Order: sequence, then C-alpha cells, then structure tokens
Amino acid sequence: MIVPRERLSGDHPVVDAETAAGRIEADATVLVSGFGSVGYPKAVPLALADDDRNLSLTVVSGGSVGKEIDVALVEADAIARRYPYQARPPARRACNDGTIAFSDRHVGSLGDEVQFGGLVDPDVAVVEALAVGKDWLIPSTSLGHTPAYVDSVDRLIVEVNRAQPRELAGFHDVYRPGRPPDREAVPLSEPGERIGEPRIEFDPDALEAVVETERRDEPYEFRDPTDDDRAIAANLQSFLEREVERAPIYDDTVRLQFGVGSLGNALMGALAAADFGDRDLVYYGEVIQDGLLDLLDEGQLRSASATSLALSAEGQDRLFSAANRYAEDVVLRPADISNRPALIDRFGVVAVNSALEVDLYGHVNSTHANGSRVLNGVGGSGDFTRNALLSVIALPSTIEDGDISRIVPMVPHVDHTEHDVDVIVTEQGIADLRGTSPRERAQLLVTECAHPAYRDRLTTYLDRATENGGHTPHDLDTAFSWQE
Amino acid sequence: MIVPRERLSGDHPVVDAETAAGRIEADATVLVSGFGSVGYPKAVPLALADDDRNLSLTVVSGGSVGKEIDVALVEADAIARRYPYQARPPARRACNDGTIAFSDRHVGSLGDEVQFGGLVDPDVAVVEALAVGKDWLIPSTSLGHTPAYVDSVDRLIVEVNRAQPRELAGFHDVYRPGRPPDREAVPLSEPGERIGEPRIEFDPDALEAVVETERRDEPYEFRDPTDDDRAIAANLQSFLEREVERAPIYDDTVRLQFGVGSLGNALMGALAAADFGDRDLVYYGEVIQDGLLDLLDEGQLRSASATSLALSAEGQDRLFSAANRYAEDVVLRPADISNRPALIDRFGVVAVNSALEVDLYGHVNSTHANGSRVLNGVGGSGDFTRNALLSVIALPSTIEDGDISRIVPMVPHVDHTEHDVDVIVTEQGIADLRGTSPRERAQLLVTECAHPAYRDRLTTYLDRATENGGHTPHDLDTAFSWQE
Repeated sequence: MIVPRERLSGDHPVVDAETAAGRIEADATVLVSGFGSVGYPKAVPLALADDDRNLSLTVVSGGSVGKEIDVALVEADAIARRYPYQARPPARRACNDGTIAFSDRHVGSLGDEVQFGGLVDPDVAVVEALAVGKDWLIPSTSLGHTPAYVDSVDRLIVEVNRAQPRELAGFHDVYRPGRPPDREAVPLSEPGERIGEPRIEFDPDALEAVVETERRDEPYEFRDPTDDDRAIAANLQSFLEREVERAPIYDDTVRLQFGVGSLGNALMGALAAADFGDRDLVYYGEVIQDGLLDLLDEGQLRSASATSLALSAEGQDRLFSAANRYAEDVVLRPADISNRPALIDRFGVVAVNSALEVDLYGHVNSTHANGSRVLNGVGGSGDFTRNALLSVIALPSTIEDGDISRIVPMVPHVDHTEHDVDVIVTEQGIADLRGTSPRERAQLLVTECAHPAYRDRLTTYLDRATENGGHTPHDLDTAFSWQE
Repeated sequence: MIVPRERLSGDHPVVDAETAAGRIEADATVLVSGFGSVGYPKAVPLALADDDRNLSLTVVSGGSVGKEIDVALVEADAIARRYPYQARPPARRACNDGTIAFSDRHVGSLGDEVQFGGLVDPDVAVVEALAVGKDWLIPSTSLGHTPAYVDSVDRLIVEVNRAQPRELAGFHDVYRPGRPPDREAVPLSEPGERIGEPRIEFDPDALEAVVETERRDEPYEFRDPTDDDRAIAANLQSFLEREVERAPIYDDTVRLQFGVGSLGNALMGALAAADFGDRDLVYYGEVIQDGLLDLLDEGQLRSASATSLALSAEGQDRLFSAANRYAEDVVLRPADISNRPALIDRFGVVAVNSALEVDLYGHVNSTHANGSRVLNGVGGSGDFTRNALLSVIALPSTIEDGDISRIVPMVPHVDHTEHDVDVIVTEQGIADLRGTSPRERAQLLVTECAHPAYRDRLTTYLDRATENGGHTPHDLDTAFSWQE
C-alpha cells in the first residue's frame, strides 16, 4: 500500500471547506469519522460553525471527536441531535440542558444501528482521510464507524488531511461483516491478525466533494498517575497474576482490554510490572493509549488491536517516528470489529473498565452524575463488560478528596448490571463477585473496596435494608440519600 | 440415530436413586440438566430431598426446573446456593429471605462461566437422558447447559427417563464451541440448520451411576390470553408489519424471538394473523412454546431453533404425536448456541421480551419487585435484548386491575439498560425509542404506552424532574414514590 505523494489520486471534486459545508442542508443528518478524539473531520465542521444559515444538524460520530465539532459547532447552536458519545464541556452542557437531543449508544452495535437499524436517516458522511482515490479512501488516526457510515450514504465528503502522517496507512485493517440476516462469522482467528484491506471502498458516484486540510488532531491529555491509580494498578496486578495461575484458559495467552482515559492508561502502563510467567499478553480493545506503547517497547505485548490511536501528542510523535515497527504489532479495525461481542467472546478477553460509581450489589454507573447529568457516554464499556470472560471494574473508592464515596447503596443510573460484572477493584482492594449472591456482594464490597471512612455508613444502610428482606435488599426511601 | 429399545446400551452402573444420591457429598456442587421447566433430573433430587444427612448443596441448572428440585429440595433445606434461575414459590421465598444464596445469570454466558469462568467448582453433574451409552447420552426435553456441564465434571450421574418419548431424539443438534482464547466461530449459517450430533459425548470414566426413572416433566401451564395480551399482540403485529416494510433487511425473512411465559406464548400465537407478505418467518429463541406449534402447523414458520420444548402438557402431546414431522423444522440446541450473542447478531433477530416494569427513559426491570424481591431471574432476556437488531419489550401498562402502573418514573432494579431497548409496546400503543433522547423517550412512553389513568402523574414527575435539568432528568427524592 503506497500513499500517493499528492494524496489525491484521480480527478476529484476538490472544493474549499465553505463550499462543501454549503452543500450540507441546514437540517441534515451528518455521519462523521472520528473515535477516541482523533481522526475526525475538522475543516467542514469549522466552516459549518461559521455558516450564517440557521443550522439544525444531526451529528453522528464514531466516538469522541475534537473541539471543531463538539465545541465550535455546539457553540454555534448548529447541532440539534448528537450520537453516540461526547466528551467536551460545551456539548455536555447542551445535552444536559436539553438543547441537544443526545442518545448514548454502545460502540459495538452503533454501525449496525445506523446502517440497518433505523437509528437515523443519514444524508451525508464527512470523513477524514489520509488519502483518497476514485472509489477508496485511507482513514487517518481512527477507523471508528467510518466504513459503516460510508456504506450508509449516497453523498460523501472527504477531508484529506496533510497533517496526518502517511505512515498511518500501515495500521489499518478494514474488514466488513456482511449484512444480517445472512451475515457470516468474522474470520478473525487471532487479535493481531489482518483479514481486510488498508482502505475503505465507496461508490464513486457518492463522492461529492474533497476538501484539503492540514490540521492536527486535538488528542488526549493524560494526567500523571495518582496515588490511587497506582494502588488500583497494584491490586489489579496481583489479582490478575493469581487469576491466570488459577484458570487453565490463560495458560498460553492473556487477552486484555482497558477502558479509555487516564486511569485506563495508567493501568495499561502498570502491567509492565506484572509477572504473567511466559504467557503472551495481547491487547484487544477499542483504543491504543500511551501505556500500551510502553508494553510494546518492552516486548511484553505480542499485539494490539483497536479502532483508534487515542494517544497524547507525545504518544503520537513516538508512534509515528517508528511507525513501521509499531505497525507490525498494532492493528486498527472498524469499531464494529474491535468491539464485536462475538470476538470478545472468542478471544476470552479480560476487560478492565472504569466507572463513576458502583453499588453494593454490583450495578455500575458509567455515565450519569446523580442519575440526571450525563458526562460522556457508555462508549465501548458495555461491549466489553458484557461479553468478556472476566469483567473488571476499576475505580477509586472516593472522589473529591474523599468527600464522596464511589461505593454507594444504589446507583441512580445503571449502565452495566449485576449480571455482567465479575470483579471490582479500588485502591482499597479487590472484591471478586463471581458466584456470590447480592447480599454476599454487599459484604465483599464494604470490606474490600469501600473507603474505611464509609464502611460503617454502608453497613448501616445494609442492615436497614435487610430488615425488609429480599434477595437484593434495598430501602428505597434512603437508597439515594448519598446522592447530592 | 436410533434409540436402543432398552435405552441403556452397554454395561452400566445402574443403581437406584437413593444409592446415587448417597454418593453426592452433603456440600457438593451439583450441575443439573433442565431448561424451560423440562428435561431436569427427577429421581435423584427426590432421593436427596429424603436424605437424612444435613445437606448444603449448590445446585446449578440450565434454567427453570421442576418441583422435584425447586420445591422438594428447597423444602428439605438441602440447597445452600442456587444458580441461575428459579421459578417455583418455595425457591423464590428462600432466595428472598436469604436462606438460599442465589445468583441470577444470563443464559447465554452461563455455560462458559461454569466451564471456564470460575463461577463454581463443580463436583458432579446429574442429567436426564432419553438413552445412554458407554460415552454418550441423548438428552430429553431440553438441552440447556447439559453439554457444558458434562464437560465440566469428572463425575456424571445419568437419569434415563422412560417417560420421555423416544421421538425426542430427532430434535437435538449438539454442537460445542471450542475453548477461548482460540475459539472458532460457530459455523451456523441459518437458524434451522444442523451442525452437530444428536447426542452428548462424555468421558466414559466419568459415568458414575445410571438411574432408571419413569416420570414425566411438570411442564408449563399457560393461561388463556387476556384482553391486554390480545391488545399488545395487535399493537406488536401492526408495528412489525410496518417495520418489515420499512427496512430492506427484512425483505426475505424475519427472524423472531419471544420470551418465555404466557404473554410470550400469546404473542407467538397471535403472529398467525400478521401479514408479512411472502417473507419467511423463522424462530431463533430459547424455548419452543405452544404458540409456535400453531405457526408451524399453519405453514407460516419455516423453522424454529431453541434449547427447550417448554410446552404445556397438551403441547407435548401434540408435538410427540407428530414428532417426525415437527423434527424437520424444529431444532434443539445447547443454550450457549441458542442464546449466543454472535448468532443473534448474525441472524438479525427481532427480539420480543416481557418485563415487570419500564421507566420513563427506557430502562427495564425484569426481575425484582420493588427493587428487592427477586421473582424468577433474567433468563435469556438479556442475551436477546442486548444483541438483537431490534429489541422490543412488551408488557401491560398496569397490573393489579389497574392499581399499579408498569410505566414508572424510575425502575428500582435495572436488567436491561436504555442502551439496549428499542421499542416498548403495551396494550395502549407503541413507543419507538430508536434515536430518541431520554426526554423524548419519556414523552413517547407517557403518550403512547402509559395507561391514561397515570399519564398526568407521570407528566407531573417529569416536569418536576426537568426543573433540575439533566440529560436524563430525575428527582431522586420522589423517583421511587410509586414503589410500594
């Protein structure tokens, strides 16, 4: 695969961003590339934000995108509807005050929902590319749902971004599952295998405009690991070391996934210290974060599969400066492959995701503060937590300098149910909930995971609730008394 | 496949039930066959119930079993732990008063949890069979997790039940997925296809005892459809007729699943009146109920795949009297195939499950009254609701003669989240929640699904909650004021 030096191969309807934006109807449903805050279109959204029409767009991304969409377009009041995830304060505010109708969706099934499921009726796709030909494009720093989106529209606008390093072309593996109801199984036998093409194909008649840009992603900034992060990592490490010894299924390899964010990144990096004997570590997740580069550099990770290079700016530089070497072991897939329930199952993935809070019975809130105010969205955490062979939720036991417990009597929003969660880890310890009844889970969470300052209060709640009896004892009058 | 006339082929360690029961340790973890209230062992559990030792068993079934286990053994105080589902009042009472430690699990992943995931450390499997050989058995009226359970133990007790008609042998298709992390895809290309064997194989050294019985299942009793059932069925029918016209993916076939129980059974039967043009209907679910026999008899259903013949006594007679004909179109699979996320996805299943209550934002409670008291368990509803292309929840808008609304401000136990549920149907109408924000969902549920007697009160709650703002507005002080 060679990226043409000029990045535009063939005759193209090259226009400036304003012209392309002007062709998008004021109330259009726009599917955009982007996942993990990278690989999203930049010039056309900025032009739309400057458009003097009264826009009322529906914007569907793959996952998290940058400020050109979730700040500029939001502040221009141009977005009426937004799917499936947002991570910037202006977008979050608009979702919470009801000015944007937001719908929070699982990553793994979003492509199907758009293409087959009637989630939206799309008008146009605007996607960032490294290069574009007559009937193909090479994606940039993320794949996300771009293949499904390109398949779902008959009008396509491509932003060719010269700021994206051409070495990116080596990472992509674009495989498309067929259409239900006669969809074949995905023929991927190993997380690091390649089964597709480096480019996305499209109907040449669909290509309405090409816009040339030269603007870098606005990538993640990871905070430095906190003391809590390090303590959580140490607890997770010792649990995983015991678990791989216990279960013969991990004799040869351990396939891991970590959630997006600073804690996930810190946990990935901390694995470098773990002793898994001579087992191969393999990553099968949705994002490549900086912590994985450490594991790759130290030879502890055989391969890494994801849908996005969600790296810091420093991590991007590190990857691109040795892209050929990294591309041997790093594969970017469409998000409906990276997060596919069938593959998470077949690979026996151990999933580690973070959360806002966990309740005494193992229900997990990943998205809503006080049950009402959404933060970012469920992302892929549900895909992995639900389908992994072993599902771990990792979080500090408190926030706000200890003023709020993250282990609560009842979560006011459930993203992952008691049926899906196996293990909770905090900086205090590990609660292995497998095989336990709800009452037993509550005891374990109080003694192993809750902060000591909250154990008595949690026990008081449990005692009161248990007086009423029940398999999952609750006192509904006071279940939310800890919520602000 | 011929069932030997004597049903015992080869030399067998035939013993009476008391002797077999006596070999089970007082605190053993016992894996039992059974799903959908049929195909469970009967004689050994009854003998255990009469055992004068102080038993403290862990009992893991495939799904619902009969009174020999969930009544007799429970009333004998012989069960300390129970997985993954129970449906008899004594077992339910014991789970709710805490004398049985119950853990409610998804059907689709339970086999893996037992075999690979460390859910329990099993000692012995006790399974019902139609016939048994040196290293094989033919299951009876359900397959459930019997193949995974037989693979998980080195001690096997088989009950050969002469009351089970030998024609059953024609229904089974036992295919086993390999072990993760190198598990291959399941090579099933069509719901009615056969890819396995009619029997379950086992290590001949594991066969510890064979017990001969002659005792029928205690099968389901379906109530007659109520007016609400008929109104729900009519609403569902008209919605599905529109949906298959709208979405090209249903052009040739519609693959359906219905939940277990009287409402599900009534909905299956009511489909006979639907007009799906010349599309083939195919059933891909977990149980065959009486309603499906009507569709098969009328030639409206091409094939039906499930893991249990959860029929009424009358339905059993009807099936067995024409077993050869029905076996052409009806396939029984292991529960980890019938409920497999990968297959539900590939077949583009339309899933219809019932629930206890639904909240204004589309969260579903399937298991707990008032958040505390478990009824039966989540069963396979989560497998289908999470992985179907279109997930419908069907329920009457009220219970107790209208005294309690099933559309509530907030459910006090979440089994299926807002991320998984597409459509709600009650006798009042249909709320198509796809693509909607939580606030929009609430409006739709109030106007389309709630009983008119509760619409004002729901709107009052919504107005009060929305004053506080938020993507999913709640007023936590009064969110549960409707719960008893």
